[in-house]
Amino acid sequence: VRILEDEIIERIRRRIPSSEGGLLHTGIGHDAAVIRPQRRDWVITCDQFLEGVHFLMEKSPPESVGYKALARATSDLVAMAAQPRVFFMSIVLPEERTGKWLSRMISGMARASKLYGLRLAGGDTARAPEKTGSVALNLTVLGEIPRGRTIGRAGAKPGNSIFVTGVLGGAQLGLELLMAHKALTRNRKLLTAQYYPVLPLDFALWLGRNHPPTAMMDVSDGLSTDLTRLCRASGVGAVVYADKIPTVALPKSLKPPRMDALTLALHGGEDYGLLFTIPPKIAARIPAVFGRTRVTRIGEIVSGSGVKLVSSEGQIAKLRPGGWDHFRKQ
Amino acid sequence: VRILEDEIIERIRRRIPSSEGGLLHTGIGHDAAVIRPQRRDWVITCDQFLEGVHFLMEKSPPESVGYKALARATSDLVAMAAQPRVFFMSIVLPEERTGKWLSRMISGMARASKLYGLRLAGGDTARAPEKTGSVALNLTVLGEIPRGRTIGRAGAKPGNSIFVTGVLGGAQLGLELLMAHKALTRNRKLLTAQYYPVLPLDFALWLGRNHPPTAMMDVSDGLSTDLTRLCRASGVGAVVYADKIPTVALPKSLKPPRMDALTLALHGGEDYGLLFTIPPKIAARIPAVFGRTRVTRIGEIVSGSGVKLVSSEGQIAKLRPGGWDHFRKQ
Repeated sequence: VRILEDEIIERIRRRIPSSEGGLLHTGIGHDAAVIRPQRRDWVITCDQFLEGVHFLMEKSPPESVGYKALARATSDLVAMAAQPRVFFMSIVLPEERTGKWLSRMISGMARASKLYGLRLAGGDTARAPEKTGSVALNLTVLGEIPRGRTIGRAGAKPGNSIFVTGVLGGAQLGLELLMAHKALTRNRKLLTAQYYPVLPLDFALWLGRNHPPTAMMDVSDGLSTDLTRLCRASGVGAVVYADKIPTVALPKSLKPPRMDALTLALHGGEDYGLLFTIPPKIAARIPAVFGRTRVTRIGEIVSGSGVKLVSSEGQIAKLRPGGWDHFRKQ
Repeated sequence: VRILEDEIIERIRRRIPSSEGGLLHTGIGHDAAVIRPQRRDWVITCDQFLEGVHFLMEKSPPESVGYKALARATSDLVAMAAQPRVFFMSIVLPEERTGKWLSRMISGMARASKLYGLRLAGGDTARAPEKTGSVALNLTVLGEIPRGRTIGRAGAKPGNSIFVTGVLGGAQLGLELLMAHKALTRNRKLLTAQYYPVLPLDFALWLGRNHPPTAMMDVSDGLSTDLTRLCRASGVGAVVYADKIPTVALPKSLKPPRMDALTLALHGGEDYGLLFTIPPKIAARIPAVFGRTRVTRIGEIVSGSGVKLVSSEGQIAKLRPGGWDHFRKQ
């Protein structure tokens, strides 16, 4: 076990940047890592990525498991406009995943670590207990923000404009296709949002520096669920407009009644775009496109509580938190 | 699932200190926690505690699982003479562990968090995937040291004295008793080192401030294994004296040939004492007892490589890394 562990750590270090220097004063090889911050605030998050809970082994390329495990953890830092810096990975591996599967998983994680500027600072490895045999990844990611620039979920005010980045529902569409055993070769591109979600890091940093939102979070469990959370944390309500919500373009074969782009956008999770609120006079300064990130105003914060959806015909209905559960119950 | 998750988080927060303030600028309830360091270096470690790997459900009181999961992670900070400050807990729970078991586990963890001055800053909860049904805990613990005071494993020099804290082999003895199905009621006290290891935090802080060791680590995998690691990292060898090693007092019924205190001390893991090296002229200033921590000089660092054991009869033999594996192969 010990030799396997050392060998696994070595394989990970060869692929994922882990050199000491700058703020990573002491990295892998001691009891703990030492971080030297430079008069900034540190933002820290933990996120699990578990086989059978967050991904299915037979449906997921190993590269996607590694990429997504790190990206979704990092998404919590992006949601606070933090610059990602270092991460720690704890991993549980069954014997049969220590070969080729591990190498491919690491290569996907290396891609995410380079894309978002993250260095590996430590972690822990363990063999899976016999009765389980499932892979478990736990990522702790640290980033930094200028001192005093915390953006939380609790500051949304009535009158604020509500924005989202990217297109909503793309990751859920990919999951639906995977679960329905569709012929995947024809739909490869439709799986990208599910397998390799792209985080709007550059936009988040620009926004945090220039127009700090009153509240911000990532859309990980679906707009209906996450907007409800933001409203509850801020003690406000919200109105969103169906025809303003950026939805995925469905190929002909998937058009309603087989699949509905608005339902995907309202309740589908795992897009890892941003949901933020901003005073209306600043809203005009938010570009519709920033680099490769689409930014869309979808509604307003109101006093009271709960989220209301205005349909394209002008009808108003309560939008209850749906999220991932919504789909599984159909 | 969502409501269960919120309820679990609430139960954890009620028992484990998690209030914001001081360096914990923003705690639970946002995408990530914000830490505000005060011109110090930060020491960070991750550690997993897995059912079926690190503990057996039917052999472990839930309070011990919670206590030990946090204590063993914190031990890596103590090993760098860091003051523990905040921690993050990611947890995987099967359905049947969300009731009474969880409450008792949390109460053990609360005990460790208070004992070592740790506040809960965040984490992640998930239901166990159906096929596994095992509990997994992943702890990320942060502590601080004065800037530039990193104590690693790589600085031991020939001539340095080697010290350990506490008694070695006590946790392994407890494990042996548990595995052998001994009548536990008679041996309750002998299980304490296995269930509730005490970290020598006050001594480590005193040592780091007053006489920083040239190298230090915790004894988690057994003296033979961990001293070999320290020697390899420092590029040196070591000589230790059998009759100086602090061993556990065996009750009559367990005396050799049934159980051997020296073997337990050399190869038994999980004691979470400290192993450190220090120049000989400073060695005289290290007290034999500090508070409730016993401190013992067990040998010297020499040039070369490998660890040698001098028996009480004066015979010299190679001490190969044994650790936990050693016991399982007998």
